[in-house]
Amino acid sequence: MPYFEKIEYRPVPVRELLLEMKNLSELMIDLAYSAALFNDKELAEDVLALENRVDLLSYLLEMEIMLAARDPEEAESLAGVSTVASAADKISDAAADIAAIVTQKIGIHPIVGEIFEKVEERLTRVRVATQSILLGKSIGELELAARMGVDVIAIRRNKEWIIDPKENEKIQAGDILIARGTSTGLEEFKELCEGKRRRLED
Amino acid sequence: MPYFEKIEYRPVPVRELLLEMKNLSELMIDLAYSAALFNDKELAEDVLALENRVDLLSYLLEMEIMLAARDPEEAESLAGVSTVASAADKISDAAADIAAIVTQKIGIHPIVGEIFEKVEERLTRVRVATQSILLGKSIGELELAARMGVDVIAIRRNKEWIIDPKENEKIQAGDILIARGTSTGLEEFKELCEGKRRRLED
Repeated sequence: MPYFEKIEYRPVPVRELLLEMKNLSELMIDLAYSAALFNDKELAEDVLALENRVDLLSYLLEMEIMLAARDPEEAESLAGVSTVASAADKISDAAADIAAIVTQKIGIHPIVGEIFEKVEERLTRVRVATQSILLGKSIGELELAARMGVDVIAIRRNKEWIIDPKENEKIQAGDILIARGTSTGLEEFKELCEGKRRRLED
Repeated sequence: MPYFEKIEYRPVPVRELLLEMKNLSELMIDLAYSAALFNDKELAEDVLALENRVDLLSYLLEMEIMLAARDPEEAESLAGVSTVASAADKISDAAADIAAIVTQKIGIHPIVGEIFEKVEERLTRVRVATQSILLGKSIGELELAARMGVDVIAIRRNKEWIIDPKENEKIQAGDILIARGTSTGLEEFKELCEGKRRRLED
């Protein structure tokens, strides 16, 4: 959504807005690091689009907060909600700054490269092979978090990114998955995606 | 360090400064969430102190970058380093904003409370019992990340916080540990700390 579009007020619960802002902002940091780590311009552009979404949510939330405050005590207490929202906004700005290094082709200085190599221990990007046993399975039924401490944070399918995929999203051949986890867990997950490991451990 | 203290230039490699800023800023987000989640004023104050440290690192880094740029190409490439540093600075500011909700006793609005309850799935705070099998073991030898996808991000011992403890730091009875991980891993870890689970699984 371009920033100059007029934003119409529509009622959305404060709780939902705040939770989405918080979750999105944290996810964006990992996505921005992935974009820089793998020099992925499309993912970087998606991070910039998400930043616009967080800005919109922030605006809607401020309106809801104003409408919700009925007396000074409530206003004081709602100030804390506003603080958490503004913190999420700052985090999403920071993610956008990092993504912009990739979209603006500023170039990854060797020092920045080294920093992101350390990030590689907790983020991976892998293409799902046609012989992978994960094919056709949903993210939810795989229980990746419980099994190997891994979380799929984004899927690139054809030309589209699915950010923070839902439990019922099924893995397809050719999907590019971005996952977060411990280095041991990510190694196992990568082998499963590439079809090198043929069994899901319990 | 109070903000009005004169900062003297001392040479520190850009790589080290940037890596510390990045790691510290991410850790601070989790610490700030923990402080809000457990309404922990002392931890919140430590987050505010860490924000001062990140500001200092940021200042030293900008000086190093200026001194390192010898020609326009190098300056252009170093601009990316500066961007990552400023992103880390924004993240640390966001963490300080959240910590300030606790130190300023703004009060946790029910909505903010709910948000942080969701954070509880990946952060825990636990006191080490005298009968825990973890006593006297170092963080490194426990291999918590590989075993159960858990990472100890802070230890409160007596009145002091040890932030991002080193591998050789030994666990003592009465330590309060703040750990990050998957909810299954954290559950196992909590039982180990409380002495309810008597064996480390491989």
